[in-house]
Parts: sequence; structure tokens; C-alpha cells
Amino acid sequence: MTDITNRAGAGQAEASTARIDVADVTNRLLGTWADVRREAREMVKDPAFWRDDELARDAHRERVLEQLRLLVEKKAVHRAFPKAYGGQENNGANIAGFVELVSADPSLQIKAGVQWGLFGSAVQQLGTKEHHDKWLPGIMSLEIPGAFAMTETGHGSDVASAATTATYDPEAEEFVIHTPFRAAWKEYLGNAAVHGIAATVFAQLITNGVNHGVHCFYVPIRDADGAFLPGVGGEDDGQKGGLNGIDNGRLHFTNVRIPRTNLLNKYGDVAPDGTYSSPIKSAGRRFFTMLGTLVQGRVSLDGSAAWASALALKIAITYGNERRQFNAGEGTEETVILDYARHQRRLLPRLATTYASIFAHDEFLVKFDAVFSGAADTDEDREDLETLAAALKPLSTWHALDTLQEAREACGGAGFMFENRLVGLRADLDIYATFEGDNNVLLQLVGKRLLSDFAKQFKGADAAALARFAVGQTAGKVFHGAGLRQLGQTVGDLGSTARAVERGLREDQQHALLADRVSQMVSDVATRLRPASKLSKTEAAALFNENQSELIEAARAHGELLQWEAFTDAVNAIDDEGTRTVLTWLRDLFGLGLIEKHLAWYLINGRLSAQRAGAVTAYIDRLCRRLRPHALDLVDAFGYAPEHLRAPIASGAERARQDEARAYYAQQRASGTAPILEKHAGTHGHAGTHAGKHASTHAEKHGLQG
Amino acid sequence: MTDITNRAGAGQAEASTARIDVADVTNRLLGTWADVRREAREMVKDPAFWRDDELARDAHRERVLEQLRLLVEKKAVHRAFPKAYGGQENNGANIAGFVELVSADPSLQIKAGVQWGLFGSAVQQLGTKEHHDKWLPGIMSLEIPGAFAMTETGHGSDVASAATTATYDPEAEEFVIHTPFRAAWKEYLGNAAVHGIAATVFAQLITNGVNHGVHCFYVPIRDADGAFLPGVGGEDDGQKGGLNGIDNGRLHFTNVRIPRTNLLNKYGDVAPDGTYSSPIKSAGRRFFTMLGTLVQGRVSLDGSAAWASALALKIAITYGNERRQFNAGEGTEETVILDYARHQRRLLPRLATTYASIFAHDEFLVKFDAVFSGAADTDEDREDLETLAAALKPLSTWHALDTLQEAREACGGAGFMFENRLVGLRADLDIYATFEGDNNVLLQLVGKRLLSDFAKQFKGADAAALARFAVGQTAGKVFHGAGLRQLGQTVGDLGSTARAVERGLREDQQHALLADRVSQMVSDVATRLRPASKLSKTEAAALFNENQSELIEAARAHGELLQWEAFTDAVNAIDDEGTRTVLTWLRDLFGLGLIEKHLAWYLINGRLSAQRAGAVTAYIDRLCRRLRPHALDLVDAFGYAPEHLRAPIASGAERARQDEARAYYAQQRASGTAPILEKHAGTHGHAGTHAGKHASTHAEKHGLQG
Repeated sequence: MTDITNRAGAGQAEASTARIDVADVTNRLLGTWADVRREAREMVKDPAFWRDDELARDAHRERVLEQLRLLVEKKAVHRAFPKAYGGQENNGANIAGFVELVSADPSLQIKAGVQWGLFGSAVQQLGTKEHHDKWLPGIMSLEIPGAFAMTETGHGSDVASAATTATYDPEAEEFVIHTPFRAAWKEYLGNAAVHGIAATVFAQLITNGVNHGVHCFYVPIRDADGAFLPGVGGEDDGQKGGLNGIDNGRLHFTNVRIPRTNLLNKYGDVAPDGTYSSPIKSAGRRFFTMLGTLVQGRVSLDGSAAWASALALKIAITYGNERRQFNAGEGTEETVILDYARHQRRLLPRLATTYASIFAHDEFLVKFDAVFSGAADTDEDREDLETLAAALKPLSTWHALDTLQEAREACGGAGFMFENRLVGLRADLDIYATFEGDNNVLLQLVGKRLLSDFAKQFKGADAAALARFAVGQTAGKVFHGAGLRQLGQTVGDLGSTARAVERGLREDQQHALLADRVSQMVSDVATRLRPASKLSKTEAAALFNENQSELIEAARAHGELLQWEAFTDAVNAIDDEGTRTVLTWLRDLFGLGLIEKHLAWYLINGRLSAQRAGAVTAYIDRLCRRLRPHALDLVDAFGYAPEHLRAPIASGAERARQDEARAYYAQQRASGTAPILEKHAGTHGHAGTHAGKHASTHAEKHGLQG
Repeated sequence: MTDITNRAGAGQAEASTARIDVADVTNRLLGTWADVRREAREMVKDPAFWRDDELARDAHRERVLEQLRLLVEKKAVHRAFPKAYGGQENNGANIAGFVELVSADPSLQIKAGVQWGLFGSAVQQLGTKEHHDKWLPGIMSLEIPGAFAMTETGHGSDVASAATTATYDPEAEEFVIHTPFRAAWKEYLGNAAVHGIAATVFAQLITNGVNHGVHCFYVPIRDADGAFLPGVGGEDDGQKGGLNGIDNGRLHFTNVRIPRTNLLNKYGDVAPDGTYSSPIKSAGRRFFTMLGTLVQGRVSLDGSAAWASALALKIAITYGNERRQFNAGEGTEETVILDYARHQRRLLPRLATTYASIFAHDEFLVKFDAVFSGAADTDEDREDLETLAAALKPLSTWHALDTLQEAREACGGAGFMFENRLVGLRADLDIYATFEGDNNVLLQLVGKRLLSDFAKQFKGADAAALARFAVGQTAGKVFHGAGLRQLGQTVGDLGSTARAVERGLREDQQHALLADRVSQMVSDVATRLRPASKLSKTEAAALFNENQSELIEAARAHGELLQWEAFTDAVNAIDDEGTRTVLTWLRDLFGLGLIEKHLAWYLINGRLSAQRAGAVTAYIDRLCRRLRPHALDLVDAFGYAPEHLRAPIASGAERARQDEARAYYAQQRASGTAPILEKHAGTHGHAGTHAGKHASTHAEKHGLQG
């Protein structure tokens, strides 16, 4: 730990003797699979994995393909595959290692995700032994680069409505894969434009005149020379907003025939004579089971987004702690920009949210691992996992975009330079908000789950049932499926001591406010939707639509509560007092930030008085001042090395430049060679006419950047 | 006008017979220099001006340089220059035409801005006849491509602290331009990396041992072969987050000698013997006068950002009006996504803000033109113009980034494709938030102006003085410098009728709430800063710092009020009743959106009761439903042609694809060839074991995008 006085900057009204144990915090942030994360970070210190910003699109694509081969060589991407094929059957470790690739190049990460997390995973999760024996080795070794052909031009998040058909021909014992119209082209598929030689294609399975819904088929698409096989066609997606190291493209099929056994038949099979069979009777449940096996995409985007936010803040806070601009006080020193209250307000609450996202991600990953390892794999666990994914992935991906942008602006023009990473990461992560499920669609799904839980538990208008409902939405339940966290007190109790808010809201008060808001919002929407059961389907849909935005906001509140609880659990596990103190402030900043964001709701719904609400903002400002001396420690705790950051502005170069400039002026003053300022000079030469007509009277400095 | 029923989408609860006169609204949006805008838009229909997304950086740079030559040919960029040199001396028209280049390629726009708006403008505004004669013709013809060397690595928005020196040598009658250390390199300069052969360099003018502050010098930097002249060095900025068609770079100078007469000497001169003279006595006033001549950069960014938001919404709303996804009601039709309440909530309030920004921009431009034409050019006018620029440019540039991003997400994966424009425009406009003055720094400047106005008018604690202050901050005053708008009523009067909010807040109520908030916030900050006069400079700075964020928020509120007033003035000028009705709804959506955004403030400060505040959100939802049938008209009114949009998703292709798909299914149903859905089929084949263990019970559709 370096000397706190060097890190605190000037003019700190509120000094603090507490310090965090950076190494301990790093361990906690790296979480359950810390060793795997460290191993992955060590691996990507090799420049061979880095994004080369000078490469144009085609060269970038080829570089990323080579990087994938390197990942195979390093055995960095096989942790989830069966041991029989050289994997480790370790799902949590697999995602943890995958997430860490984001610091190297998100294109590398997502192309690896396409190959092994989607294409390979579909063969593994939806196929059976025959398929595994036949294709997993080639998929794992990258001999078979493949595309995951789910999304269609006409249907994104609504996969059930995919229009591609797979019609069984019992004569030939083949499926005929067919694209009936332009909207049914498969779209945005990584590996489809150039490298893929096969694809897992989702299509409506039709046999004996019956449509059994969407199933997945293994379809070869290119020959050894890279040419499309007969009946297969496609296009290159060309330039995208980011991730241009991936060859996304479109595919279409004109009566392409594949063997019957290319149906990935774990959840649905067709006998040679065309008879359909499935271990899951309901077509709806079967569909969701198949899709549910692919939830890992959302788990890994959640983690990648959380850690990309960490990268952004490490860069912006390191720079903000060195950069000086304007001279606010006495003397000749310019002010370090992180000492400006506004700059703190821009970066520190986002730092708090980043911590919350990272801690929530680890709990999410533990849950995911328990389900996929079979350790805790009931229907309810699967459903909780899906809901968790749908709640957390939107929050963390939006947070990453917001944080990368604020960090970019906080670094000014330097933030816009590609070499400083922020704009590139933002461009690449942009699509995380809509792929693997559109964020708004996912949150609506969470909202519907909350409504259905509410309906189950709360038939009459009974406050106790409502409280039970609230408890059921907390992290203990959702992350672990057991061990209900007790609401410390009911919300009505909060009103008594005005001082409480002035000194901040304590943990149990924050929790009560956040949890109560979820309950109340869901209850409000449920009440308004109650007439729906008596309406026509169209009228009910219209009523639902009127409440759609509020339901989505309730889902967001639910996700925020889960993040807050994960953060709180992490803080409460800390032994070192100084560390716990500082991280409690950071958690308070997160909690109060949420309450401030939704302050109008708390006021309208009588949860906070105007006076107490008015104190929230002041307390947040105070928390920012308290945390400012710890800002650098808190971003150092992310554990990134220079090889992960690679941003010249976070390298110490800015401090060196500032020091050089200050030394120059100091030397000038010491030697008496400094020119006198005009205002201190006795004469002004010829003052001429006073053309004050055009002069501004602004007394403060300001300027332009050209 | 097309048939409203085609445009309204399904399931509109609130139909409307009012229609807008699209052509009339277009005229009003195009504003005072509509003819120039139309001319510019007509010009950029030529594909020669379009961004070619396939070009890598170097080729893009060369294309943009060629496009600049084309602009010269078309006489599209000389409207502000003196008639004597072939210009029109028409400042407003010049900016209006310039703003419209944004739809062609922001790189083209900003490189043109560097050449003629910054480099050329510095020579024109800061130089005198000798300089004009010598360089303006070459600058106008692009024979002299040049850089505007103001920003340094170590100093962005704080131009007064620039460290480059220009020391006069009376022996040689030359200035010596020198970069004393690395932080003083000139940075982020368009034209510096490759094309520039000269630069207008801002440096501390030192003569006879006295530093007279920052002045501007004309410095040749490259020879005929493109090599740096002796003593000049530099680097290429390389890849940036956007605007990669511009060759930004760094420059440094090692004792580079230029003739004495290369000082652009309108506001400060040095005689051969080294005597300094200036028509402006105060060094501070002189500095601000020089910078003030360059305010047009902010004017044009404001307009460009507003119109880029319009482009984004034209694309996203056209697409949202055709795209179908999920089937919410009865029958087989999927729902048009703009019929979803959430989708409306995402796009329509941003449409309202875009209208407000465009109307405010036109008033701003009128003010700018009056000052620069000399028609209304007092000290106070200049100061108002600076404040207006500092208030509006941050709001419109942030709004553009927010809108481009929301539009991109609202278009899903298609929004991420470069061809659909949204990601490219967002990347290019990113830097608008920090160049020509960092947005936060600019807003702080506005805040300080508000405080200083407040201090002037409000010495005692007198409510009448406070009301006068409020009136002084309204658009009538700030845009036009005269004609005070009357506050319709004091804010305390609003409380009486609960119905008022349920039916929305009327125009005068919206105005009172918005204006009162500005006054109160400034008054609050001023009260808290009052002790500063008795404190040391450092203590006073700390006190100011504690209030920095709230002051910036007050400045934002001031800018929002100006936008609201500009929008309201525009609406009230409309004759056609249907048009006025619909635009009043849109203005209400803007006004109520601002009130909702700041609802906690209104509650805490007793301006709205909880009950009335609770009705604001419901009313906004209702306004969205009302406006939904007019959404397409409202974006059509932006007046863009397909050549400006160029986004395949806004071309009608989506509708054609949807129609084709629906026709396919209709034909299948009609012919009886459609496969039966499994749930309607009598048999289910072999149901197998019921492995419901893995089945989700979610009843709604959802999915993944791969």
C-alpha cells in the first residue's frame, strides 16, 4: 500500500485513517473461481491475445481466429466439456475463465463464446453420445468452426416464432432444412460469414404433418475449400458497431438435406418411420428446457460487463488522480480533477455499482454451477437461475455502457483515443445490451415471474402474505434457493428518527426500502391487472401493455435489490475492520444511490418524508468525499496489471507530464527567468482605445477544445 | 399525408382525428435559414458526400479531403467569409448549411469545421486585413489546409493555462514559438497528422519580459512535400472512437521562428521594438474576447447534435412502425413494436426533446447571427450568447448520444449493423460532449453566470427581486435580450386543483414549475456560498466545490427551461389547429418529462403534492398513447430523404419482409398445407418419461439471440 497522503489529493475535508487491504479485496472480488481468473489473466498478459487497433476488419478477423487456436493450445476453453473428451465438467470455472478474456479483446471473447459456448454447447447440451463422439473433438480443437444459427432476421428474442423448417422425409430418412422467406434468414451469426463449416440450426421440426416446435439440427454449411454446400447461401454482415474481429453473417437454406441423426435429439427425437418422441410431454416446457441449457451466455455477459466496468474505472480513476486542471485555491498548483466534487459524483457511484455487479455475478455463477453440475438442479432452481439471468444481465450490461461512456468523458479528449481502451470497449460491449436476449424483453420476463410468484403467495389482501412475498424475492432465496433473509423491520418503522437519514441510512433501513419497493410495485401492477381474467385476450393484452413499463421498472428494482444484497453479504464477510469500514461506505453509496434514483417513488408512496429525502443527496456527496482518498485503492483492488489496461493514460504518463511541467515552472520561478504577468507589470504599453464592447465580463477561466 | 389508420398501428386506445400538416412542421423545424438547409440537404444527396463504411482509416481520410474540395467547388462553406474574398458575410446561414453536413458524414462535417470554422475563422476573426489578404483566399480554396492548435495535452478546457510560448525577438523582428515540455504539445488537432500545411497556434505572448497571455499566431508547419518544417514535429493520433475520416494529430515546436506580422493582431499587437499594445486593457477581458469570436463551434455542434437525434428517431420510429415481434392479442398477427407501451416510452419522449432542441437551436442561431452581423452586438449580447452556447451545447450533445443509443437498442441487432447508421453516428458524435468545451465545464460556466446575475439583482431577501431574477433567465431575455416573458402566475398558486395534473399540467403551470426550479436552485446555492466572501481563497474554493454538482444541475435546469420556451414559442406560432394540438401534446410530453425527471425535487421542495406528482407518470404514458398515431408524421416532418437516411431498416424493407412472411403463412393456411401444431395434434407419439425436472414453467415466450 502506498502512502495514503499521496493518494488522497489536496483539500480533503474528511480525512480517514481506515485503509483497505487491497489484496484481500482483490480475492473477494475475484470470488469463488479466483484461481481460474488469475490463470486466465496471466495467460492474456501475452500480447498475442491483445486487440491490435491498427488492423482493418479482415485482418482483425483472421487474428481472432488465430487467437482461438491459441486458446485451444492453452486449454483455456474446455473446462465445461465432458471429461471423456478432455474437458473438466467444471461449469463455473469455465465461465470465470471466459469472462476474463474481455480485457484482451471482446471480439476474441465473443468468437470463443460462439464456438464453444453456443455452437459447441448446443451439440453437448442438446445432442446425445453419438453427436458428442462425432463432433465434440473437432469442435473443441477448432477443426470444426461453427455458427449458432438461432436468430432470424424476422425474429430475435422471440425464438419460438422462428420460421426455418426442418421437415422429415421418411423415404430418405433425412430432414429437409428450408428457409421459406427472407425474414427467416438466420442472422448476426458469428463464424457464418467466413470461418464456419457447420452450424447448429434452430428450426420448426415437422414430421407426419405435425409441427413439434423449435429443435436444433447439426448442418454442415461449407466444403473444404470454404465454399457453401449446395442449397446453403449467405451474406457477410459487414461492418458493425463493434466486435469487428468476428465474421458475423447471414445464412439461408434451400431444401438442404441432412441425415435424420443430425437432429440433436436429447429432448426430442424422430424415429426412422417419422414418429416423434420426447421425454418432455408439453411442447412449451420442452422448448424452454432446450433454451434453458443455453443460459450460460447470459451468465458470461453479466460477468464480462461487470469486469469491463472495472477496467473503465481503473483507467478513469487512475487518470483522474493524476490529471490536474484549473487552479481553484491559492498558490500555483492546479487541482487534481478527482478532487472536484462533480468528478467524484461522476465516477464513485459507478464504482459502487461495479462492486455490486461483481459480487452479484459471483453469486449468480455459484448458482449456475450448482444447477449445471447437478448439485442443486430442481425445476425451481432452473427457474430461479433463468430469472436471475434475466434480472442481472440487463443491469450489468447497461451499467457497463454507462460507465464506459462516463469514464470516456471524464478523460476528455484522451478518453476518445482508441489507445486508451474506453471507446473500443464501449463499441464492443454495445451489443451486449440486446444479444442473448434483449434487455427490456428479459426484464419483462422477470416482471412476469414476480407477478406469478405474487399471485401464488398472495390470494387475499393480507399484509403478512405480502411480507412473505417480499422475503421470497431476496438474494438468500434467489441465489441459493434456501435460507431466507429476514427483513430487519417493516418499513413503517423508519419514520421515527430524522437523524437516521442525516447520518445515512443504516443497512437494514436500506434493505427495507429497497425490498419494500419491489413488493409494492409488483403488488400495484398485480392489482391493476386483476380485471384481466375477465377480459378478452386482446383487451387483456391492452391492459398488460398499459402496465408494461412499470412492470419492467419493478423487475429492475428486483435486480438492484439482489445486487445490493450480494454486496452486503460480501461486506459482512470481511474481517479486517478498515476494509469493512470503507467497503461499507461504498455499499452505502450504492444503496443510497438507488434510493436517490427512485426518490420520487419513495416520496409519492410515503416511504420517506420530504425532509429525510432531502438529506439523501447531501449524504451521498459526503460519502463521495469520504471515499475519495480510497478511490485508487478500490480500483487497484480489481487486480489488473498494465498488460490488461494497456491505456497510456493509466500508465503514470500523465503524472510524469504534470511533474515535468511543474518542475519547469518551479525552476523558472527559482531562477528568476519567468516572464512577469501583464497584470503585475507596471506598464501596459499602449492601452489604445478601450474596445470593451466585445469583452466578456466572465471572471472565471474557460475555453475551447479545437 | 398517408392514411392515418395505416400509421396508427393496432390496439390504439386513444384514437385521434387531429393530424399534423407535415410540410408546415418541416418548415418550422428547418427554421430561419430553411432555404440554406434545403440547399445543403439537396447537395448531400450526391453519394460523393456520403461516408463509405468499407474504407479503412487512411482511405477514409483521403476521401474526406476530396469531399472538402467538393464543398469548395459547390461554394457550400464560404457563407461566413467577407464578401471581399467571395464570401457572403452571412453567419447564420453559414452555420445552418454546415449543420446539415452531419447527415453525410460527421468526419466531413468536422474536418470542414476545422478548416473553415476554426483555422479559417481564427485568421478572419483574430487577424487583420494583411492576414486576410494573404491567407483567406488559400484557406477558402483549400490550397492551405490548416490546423487549429489551441488544445494542449496538459490543458483542454482551460485554454488560459496553455504552456506554449511565443517570445518576441526584437533583433530579428520574429516570434519564437516554443513547446517547453511534453504536456504543452498541441493535441487532437484535425489536419495536423497529414494534410495541414499551416496552423493557428495559441501561445503565451511574451515580449520585453512580460507575458501578455494567450494570443494566436499563424505558423507554417509543412513544406510542399508534406514534410515538417524545421523545428516542427508531431504525431498521428491514430485510431479514435469516431471521426476517423479526420487526420487528428499532435504538434510541437522547438524554437520555431515566424515573422512578427504572423501574430493575428486584432486584439493585441507587438511593435517592431517589442512594445505591446491592445485595444482591450484588461488581459482577462482581452482573452475572453478572443475566445468569444470562436463561439460558432458550439453553435454548430448544438445544431448538429439536435439534427443527428432527428435522424436517429426517423430511423428507429420508421422501423418500429413496421417491425412485428411477439403476438400479444388474438389471432395470428404479431404486434408492431411501436404499439408496445415500453417502446413508446423509449422513443417518444426523446422525440419531444429533439423537437425542443431543434427549436432552441434556431433561436440560438438567430441570436448568434445578430451578434456576429453587428445587428445586436453589445457586451451583454455577447455574454448572453456565450451563456446560451454553454447551456445548450451540453444538453443537445448529451441528448444526441442518449437518443442514438436508445434508437440503436430499439432496433436490436439491426441497430448494431453499421449500414443502419446509428452506431456510426453515435461513435462520431461521442466527442461532441467534450470538445469545444467539456460539457460539465460549460454548465459550470452557466451556473456561475446565474449566480452572478442573482447576486446583482438580489441583494436582500426579497421575493419580488427573486421573481425578477427568474424572469431574467427566460428565453425572451436570453435569446433576444429583450421582451421579458411574464410568469403566468406564481408557483404557490398551483396547488388548488388536483384535476389539473390528472389532465396534465397546462402550459403556464409547466412554465412556472420549470422556471421556479431554476430560481430556487440558484438561490439555494447562492445562500450556501454566502460565507465564501469571509473565507480564504482555498476555503472558499472548498465551499464552492461542495456545491459544484448542484450548481451544474441548476445550469442544466436553466438550459431545459430555454428549450421548453423555444418549443412553446414555436407551438404557439402554429395556425393549423390539428398541427397545434399534436405539437402541444409533444411539448407537454417534453415539459412533463422534465418535471418527472426532477420529480423528487418538486416533492422535496413542496412544489407538488405526492398525489399530484403520482399523476405525472400516468399522464406521460397517456401522452405517449395519444402521440403514437402521429409518431411517423412527426419524424417525417424532419424532412429527410432516403439519401440522408441510407439505413436499410428505414427503407421499407422490413415491412416488405413482414408482408412476405404473413402472405406465406396466410397462403399455407388457405391451402390447408400448414402443419398442425403439436398441441392441436391428437397424438404425441411416444411421450416417454416425463423429465419435467428441467422444464421451465414460464408461460410466456422468450429467447436468446446468438
